[in-house]
Amino acid sequence: MYRIDLNSDLGESFGRYTIGMDDKIIPLITSANVACGFHASDPVVMEKTIAMAKEAGIRVGAHPGYPDLMGFGRRNMNVTPAEAKAYTLYQIGALDAFCKAKGLIMQHVKPHGALYNMAAKDYNLAKGICEAVAEYNKDLIIMALSGGQLVQAAKDMGLRTALEVFADRAYEEDGSLVDRRKEGAMVTDEDEAIARVIRMVKEKKVTAITGKDIPITADSVCVHGDGVKALAFVEKIRRALTEEGIEICSLDQIVR
Amino acid sequence: MYRIDLNSDLGESFGRYTIGMDDKIIPLITSANVACGFHASDPVVMEKTIAMAKEAGIRVGAHPGYPDLMGFGRRNMNVTPAEAKAYTLYQIGALDAFCKAKGLIMQHVKPHGALYNMAAKDYNLAKGICEAVAEYNKDLIIMALSGGQLVQAAKDMGLRTALEVFADRAYEEDGSLVDRRKEGAMVTDEDEAIARVIRMVKEKKVTAITGKDIPITADSVCVHGDGVKALAFVEKIRRALTEEGIEICSLDQIVR
Amino acid sequence: MYRIDLNSDLGESFGRYTIGMDDKIIPLITSANVACGFHASDPVVMEKTIAMAKEAGIRVGAHPGYPDLMGFGRRNMNVTPAEAKAYTLYQIGALDAFCKAKGLIMQHVKPHGALYNMAAKDYNLAKGICEAVAEYNKDLIIMALSGGQLVQAAKDMGLRTALEVFADRAYEEDGSLVDRRKEGAMVTDEDEAIARVIRMVKEKKVTAITGKDIPITADSVCVHGDGVKALAFVEKIRRALTEEGIEICSLDQIVR
Amino acid sequence: MYRIDLNSDLGESFGRYTIGMDDKIIPLITSANVACGFHASDPVVMEKTIAMAKEAGIRVGAHPGYPDLMGFGRRNMNVTPAEAKAYTLYQIGALDAFCKAKGLIMQHVKPHGALYNMAAKDYNLAKGICEAVAEYNKDLIIMALSGGQLVQAAKDMGLRTALEVFADRAYEEDGSLVDRRKEGAMVTDEDEAIARVIRMVKEKKVTAITGKDIPITADSVCVHGDGVKALAFVEKIRRALTEEGIEICSLDQIVR
Repeated sequence: MYRIDLNSDLGESFGRYTIGMDDKIIPLITSANVACGFHASDPVVMEKTIAMAKEAGIRVGAHPGYPDLMGFGRRNMNVTPAEAKAYTLYQIGALDAFCKAKGLIMQHVKPHGALYNMAAKDYNLAKGICEAVAEYNKDLIIMALSGGQLVQAAKDMGLRTALEVFADRAYEEDGSLVDRRKEGAMVTDEDEAIARVIRMVKEKKVTAITGKDIPITADSVCVHGDGVKALAFVEKIRRALTEEGIEICSLDQIVR
Repeated sequence: MYRIDLNSDLGESFGRYTIGMDDKIIPLITSANVACGFHASDPVVMEKTIAMAKEAGIRVGAHPGYPDLMGFGRRNMNVTPAEAKAYTLYQIGALDAFCKAKGLIMQHVKPHGALYNMAAKDYNLAKGICEAVAEYNKDLIIMALSGGQLVQAAKDMGLRTALEVFADRAYEEDGSLVDRRKEGAMVTDEDEAIARVIRMVKEKKVTAITGKDIPITADSVCVHGDGVKALAFVEKIRRALTEEGIEICSLDQIVR
Repeated sequence: MYRIDLNSDLGESFGRYTIGMDDKIIPLITSANVACGFHASDPVVMEKTIAMAKEAGIRVGAHPGYPDLMGFGRRNMNVTPAEAKAYTLYQIGALDAFCKAKGLIMQHVKPHGALYNMAAKDYNLAKGICEAVAEYNKDLIIMALSGGQLVQAAKDMGLRTALEVFADRAYEEDGSLVDRRKEGAMVTDEDEAIARVIRMVKEKKVTAITGKDIPITADSVCVHGDGVKALAFVEKIRRALTEEGIEICSLDQIVR
Repeated sequence: MYRIDLNSDLGESFGRYTIGMDDKIIPLITSANVACGFHASDPVVMEKTIAMAKEAGIRVGAHPGYPDLMGFGRRNMNVTPAEAKAYTLYQIGALDAFCKAKGLIMQHVKPHGALYNMAAKDYNLAKGICEAVAEYNKDLIIMALSGGQLVQAAKDMGLRTALEVFADRAYEEDGSLVDRRKEGAMVTDEDEAIARVIRMVKEKKVTAITGKDIPITADSVCVHGDGVKALAFVEKIRRALTEEGIEICSLDQIVR
């Protein structure tokens, strides 16, 4: 039996600014990564987002990022592991307050943007993040790039992990994502993207940008809700996965 | 048997900026109100502050404020009760993450500065704050101006309250604090300030700025650690209280 | 000969967040009030906005606001006149850097949101803003609510003023805007709104919410570009004004 | 005739937070680099700082930094050259508003912290900064690490440059500063530090950490005012320079 979780970044609006179509993507996913006010979101948005997730019955996780609202947390910042740990604790706790208020159990933690990418490559940074999670609640699942350093650090610390893969991104031979600025970094053909995901789930393999097949494990696929086209793709991938006998379900049925 | 809690605002440093002498005031107080990153503090400061409080064995509470770092949370802001609720939830949760990581139980919530003052006068704003606390954890104590609207809202919602009094501030006949800009707003004579506190505790009375005695209840006295003189005053008031047979102890021995 | 300026708030996007349809409204207006990074906007957005205004040949002014990005500068904040002065100087200078870089002469200063509304009622706050403008550049025009305290303070300081009126807002008998929360605060009928503006320009009168006619002077009308409907209204009011023989032109042909 | 400018970072306080002893260092320096609100400072602090500089008759420059108040602008951030250009324009303009209001002519621009260090190594980033300065005011002097990429970019763009050296830092053979984390990065002996500066000025040479002499040009020496010891060192270096016949004077007498 094959199983996969579909996750998406949510609650990224801020003040009078709106991003994303959260109400449209929520019915299509099983895990929501909710922004925590550093790279996006604010307390009012967080409260509303958690209420929507609760009503839809999907699982939520914290989506901590760098303190860089102007850059949407997408710019590398040279923070120390100790700073990353403190920033993660702060943001997890802030989001968990809204979960508790609504009677929701937080499921996972997935770093955002540049923090996600840097933690996939830098073990010490990853360790800082994992220490925050472990000290806060050992039951939380770390969602991170399949094969990256954050997964490694989480395992070393005894935390459960959800290995994330991307439908629309090319991979290097070492399992890292191809830099967006390189040609061929994005998988633009929808059918090819879906076929790749199915293969990752069933065969635990993906063809790297070099043409070589590499091993990969997929617990969750990242999808986007920031446009009509993105939403249509999520519906398409859902159908394809179901037709292939892959069950779309929440992480606790996948991660052990 | 008379009892009183001594509370002080802590953890108000930010980044490379330092305010207060936290290590000096901690041994002298029983409750620390720890800033949560909106009007002051940052995650690194919060982690360090909670570690210090843990080591000293004092109780900690969240000290949420307006999102106004530039004004240190001291400027009135026209936020809605719903915004105040969300801001309070966010800040309580953020601080509680550090408490959990260190194995500390958060004791109370005391709003900061302009949020404290506005909530003492505006029942709806106070209700927003109390809803946040009640939804997060019904065991948390609301620390607020003795006789103010925040105490009233907390009681109406079934929350426990710690009634706070000020040694160095004059009172209006209605129990509110005299505006700092008015003459006589500050009680500058130390002995008089101490005598007033002792009378508030033992006789439950204080002389208002008009000369009339008014009823007042004191569960906690606010003290400051932002200077050598302030610290000396705290030592002086501690001695005086002890000599008068007033036990200085944590809120859970006072509030029921 | 009747003349009127049409102004609109522009450049209110921030980071990855977009607000408004600046490219669509620019061809329809004569004056742009450009956000300066406190209540909205960031340096990258400001540079782009000034470039667009330059290319379109419209006049630009600074649109300083309270340091409250989360509240979009719409929440009253209790800042002192000295703080308001410093905040205004900072924001004027920041925007002017982009004007200079593009060879544009800044035309006016119009405070935003809560700062605009509070300065219309509070002479001391208004004076702080005017001091900033006068010390920076005496040629700048203060754009403010027709009949408000900011106009008065500007005149007292020898600054030129552009009196602003609103097509879609009801007026109290004293010339102030009816609070948005009161019934009848908004003029929702488009034809009525346009007829009111024409009468303000030609007869220098408007009917207050009480039914009484009050005197009013109109140098500029505020219009919005935040939606398809808003843009259609601007085109409609432009046609109506032109048909009535009212020339739509920049402030320097109106203000003396 | 030998000449040198003494520069120091000023106006780094923020809100209720105070850093530095600006009033003490001002009489000892010839150029002040004034923070502009991104990594430190706020509009009220900037106004006060410019007023102090004006009264003391020293020259001022803008000290733009990364938008990272929490990290005091000391953490590398992966901003694009276009972002660096916009951030620099914004901050220069903001500070210049206070200069204009006080009748001061801004003399120079010196990037802060991580922006300074990254621009010394990254020509494209340096070019973004220089474009901002050139578009704003071609008379401004770029103050930057002697021998670094920012000096090169400024020269290529026809801007005047002030070559900065450090008394208390060791140099690599290529003229870059030794990383603070490496042993021997700091020159801790005061007399040695002073002797090095004198040699840099008179012989245009300094001994690198490898022991090899390298060529270096010194237009300005960076000094600090953040403590009693730091101030005493500034007085000591002033005396030593004067005794050596090196005139301490403003940049316009040095830079051509």
